[in-house]
Amino acid sequence: MSGFYIEQLVKTIAKLPSLGTRSARRITLHLLKKRESIIPQLIQTLQNVYDNVKVCEICGNYDVESPCPICASSNRDHHTLCIIQDISDLWALERGGLYKGVYHILGGVLSAIEGITPDDLNIDKLLTRIEQEDITEIILALPATVDGQITMHYISSLLKDKEIKVSTLAQGIPVGGELDYMDDGTLKLALDMRKQL
Amino acid sequence: MSGFYIEQLVKTIAKLPSLGTRSARRITLHLLKKRESIIPQLIQTLQNVYDNVKVCEICGNYDVESPCPICASSNRDHHTLCIIQDISDLWALERGGLYKGVYHILGGVLSAIEGITPDDLNIDKLLTRIEQEDITEIILALPATVDGQITMHYISSLLKDKEIKVSTLAQGIPVGGELDYMDDGTLKLALDMRKQL
Repeated sequence: MSGFYIEQLVKTIAKLPSLGTRSARRITLHLLKKRESIIPQLIQTLQNVYDNVKVCEICGNYDVESPCPICASSNRDHHTLCIIQDISDLWALERGGLYKGVYHILGGVLSAIEGITPDDLNIDKLLTRIEQEDITEIILALPATVDGQITMHYISSLLKDKEIKVSTLAQGIPVGGELDYMDDGTLKLALDMRKQL
Repeated sequence: MSGFYIEQLVKTIAKLPSLGTRSARRITLHLLKKRESIIPQLIQTLQNVYDNVKVCEICGNYDVESPCPICASSNRDHHTLCIIQDISDLWALERGGLYKGVYHILGGVLSAIEGITPDDLNIDKLLTRIEQEDITEIILALPATVDGQITMHYISSLLKDKEIKVSTLAQGIPVGGELDYMDDGTLKLALDMRKQL
């Protein structure tokens, strides 16, 4: 491939998540072909995000405002706090529009392998919020992995002397899930946790 | 998802080829998290491409120069012309470094379904090049699809009165290809075209 700037663009795009060199080449070619209509718009959109988006000082969400619209809204239930790993989880829950409380973003989960300790997570801020805000229920919506479970145990141990209801998300067969596509762990859990009709 | 600018960035990224909304969200989140290190660099790279890359007036390649380094090089064989569908094919052939001639990019192949006629392709320019340059061999490296075959037939019919050797790429089992993964068409072709040892 000739052309230094083209190669540089392919390399920059290839470093983004879910992309490799092959798809980076396809995207670069698309950008080159439609460059009058796409490149200036993409630059402007990136610049807008760079200039305007900040981190919410309360929950850790990204928005043009801090506090973010969720933390600032009087329509949300500020007594219920949902603890999540990352902003993508907030986006997923908000898309469904089913949750009416507020959030706290940890920024990760504890991990012995990756060396992530409580100090690396947004936990101090969580304890301050629990002191200062009138929170009555905490939902631990962390991933159903070993690290996620350990983090949930750690946080619930910090909360055990407080008068707060702590819950986690239900586990089992997902809606529309076919049994023969489920792993053994999920099947065992769904059997153990079976509900009487 | 809250934040107008974030949503706009997700939508812009999701329109790129090989990406959907889910991967666009992952990429946006990555850009937000590493924005100090990534976003200014990405904007600069896009701006460089936008400002500097042009289309080669001879072959249709993209480069910062026109004529492009391939057309301008005295180390290439300017008597051999490889006709390709798109710039990605040029990139693929150049990566291998096996071809030493020059290129002509058609910008597509004839297609009755998509309504692509000879006027939509870079064919007039091809005929002018054949008149003006001293071309002795043309390699039709177009895709091995029905539309590709039709385009090859069309171009070779235009060339039949000229003293030019016209060839197409060999077809058969790819290197490392396992027979039980090949489609019936390829197997039949590989059998019909078998080479005596």
